[in-house]
Amino acid sequence: MFKPSDFISVKRRIKPYIHETRILSSKSINEISGNNIFLKPECLQKTGSFKIRGAASKITSLAQGEKIDGVVTASSGNHGQAVAYMAKTFGIKATIVIPNNAPQAKIKAMEGYGAEIVLVGPMSNERLDMAQKIARERGYIYIPPYDDLEVIKGQGTIGLELIKWGEKIDKVFVPIGGGGLISGIASCIKTFYPKIKVIGVEPKGSCSMYTSWIKGEITEIATDTIADGLRAVKPGEITFPLVQKYVDNIVLVEEDEIKAAMALYMERMKLIVEPSGAVTLAAILKEEALNQNLVGIVSGGNVDITKISQYFLE
Amino acid sequence: MFKPSDFISVKRRIKPYIHETRILSSKSINEISGNNIFLKPECLQKTGSFKIRGAASKITSLAQGEKIDGVVTASSGNHGQAVAYMAKTFGIKATIVIPNNAPQAKIKAMEGYGAEIVLVGPMSNERLDMAQKIARERGYIYIPPYDDLEVIKGQGTIGLELIKWGEKIDKVFVPIGGGGLISGIASCIKTFYPKIKVIGVEPKGSCSMYTSWIKGEITEIATDTIADGLRAVKPGEITFPLVQKYVDNIVLVEEDEIKAAMALYMERMKLIVEPSGAVTLAAILKEEALNQNLVGIVSGGNVDITKISQYFLE
Repeated sequence: MFKPSDFISVKRRIKPYIHETRILSSKSINEISGNNIFLKPECLQKTGSFKIRGAASKITSLAQGEKIDGVVTASSGNHGQAVAYMAKTFGIKATIVIPNNAPQAKIKAMEGYGAEIVLVGPMSNERLDMAQKIARERGYIYIPPYDDLEVIKGQGTIGLELIKWGEKIDKVFVPIGGGGLISGIASCIKTFYPKIKVIGVEPKGSCSMYTSWIKGEITEIATDTIADGLRAVKPGEITFPLVQKYVDNIVLVEEDEIKAAMALYMERMKLIVEPSGAVTLAAILKEEALNQNLVGIVSGGNVDITKISQYFLE
Repeated sequence: MFKPSDFISVKRRIKPYIHETRILSSKSINEISGNNIFLKPECLQKTGSFKIRGAASKITSLAQGEKIDGVVTASSGNHGQAVAYMAKTFGIKATIVIPNNAPQAKIKAMEGYGAEIVLVGPMSNERLDMAQKIARERGYIYIPPYDDLEVIKGQGTIGLELIKWGEKIDKVFVPIGGGGLISGIASCIKTFYPKIKVIGVEPKGSCSMYTSWIKGEITEIATDTIADGLRAVKPGEITFPLVQKYVDNIVLVEEDEIKAAMALYMERMKLIVEPSGAVTLAAILKEEALNQNLVGIVSGGNVDITKISQYFLE
């Protein structure tokens, strides 16, 4: 479906707008694990998460031809921030539809990037309906959070930044929410090195991709996890078949394992990682000590400071 | 007092044992400040603080000649961890004397490096007496936390890593506890570029160096601050005259300003910085917006995760 050149050309297009995050490692975490762990810290990416890659890919793909009046999306999280930031960069209008119970800090961050905020009720279909209505009425481009080929290729540029190590890498662990990040990374890596294993990670309390993957069909589930970026009730129509085709395994992690991984990041690496970003280290720490070369994608670092206490004082 | 070659030779000696920490900056913090801020993140240094530089300098200076039976110091904080780590690296014994009310986490960290822990009462003179007794009885080398020329030269290697930018730097902000870090950095920088201003930073609640500097003589004070690494009741005999000679100014910061700086590190840079390490950004944010090139030394990142909540939930 994808060719190596797809990712290379998207990377070239988005390069001015993103950081190429530098791999981090920790001797003490390696000692705990018994494997060589290489962490790709997208928490240190612009806007604090990988989402800027997909947003930049989508917007630059449009900017090559169409005239853009504005962009719109429905996300109070990392995707919303990424779209707002990229729109500001390109000097186009952005409207972000979010639930009226979203934290003030997130609203402020998006307003800080100059985005218009539209508040609707707390149900996710209300947000999507409103975003699509705005797109229709104003002629704005809707930027999907994951189920879009341009967005997926953008996230896949992380894979491109990993393949310079070639087949020395044994496994790459990737968080799964709607599946955009893992679809992109798995498609990219397998295009170059089919032998590298790509492992998806979901919280046990929010495992719609795992459930669908086992059943062989898109399945809706209830979600309950601190990993707010991974609370997708079902996989995407585009991402699900890509996961079926390219992902080698999906592993589940407990809430306590996510918190323990966050604590390790803070204590050993002095790094703030959001729960959704910490799931990969949680999964890696369950691997057998076999001196393997394991890569963990740290998807983001946007977490309310006051929430950190809640996780560790309970 | 010091020659440029002093710092160069110490740097060469300790290079195998330390990281040369890479300068970090944040576009959003620069926008808040109106200056160009360059942060030297010693929180990402081995053992989580700059203290390893001084410990490495002292131990390698001994290792060149004397036979060492063991080393001993009195510190439950970053200096204790640094000495324990360096002793392990050299395969020599380390004994760390700490108060019996020290947090378990710190004791575990030092035991993790193979150090022997000796518990005494909570008064600081009890620790020092016991450490010197052990040094005498066992023939161990006592490693002072700051008032020692080898230790000071070790901390000064941070200055050496900054001078490659030459006179483009307007000011360097350095936390002050006992004065070892700023003595080293100021001596080093002024040896190369006397025009670069070196500014010391102390918490208002613990400003023994400021008080002594104003009075012109070593003065003892009471201390009360969340910046536990900066709770020195008086400057050192060696560090005080160096500060008088080389430091251009000393500024004081409030507890709330320290907390706000810690929050900025977490939110904007995804970085865990301990209160003592955050004082420099707190001071920098009080500078006028003049597009100056300001360097902040981030001395360490060792903070109990559960304490972070206390700082931000109050």
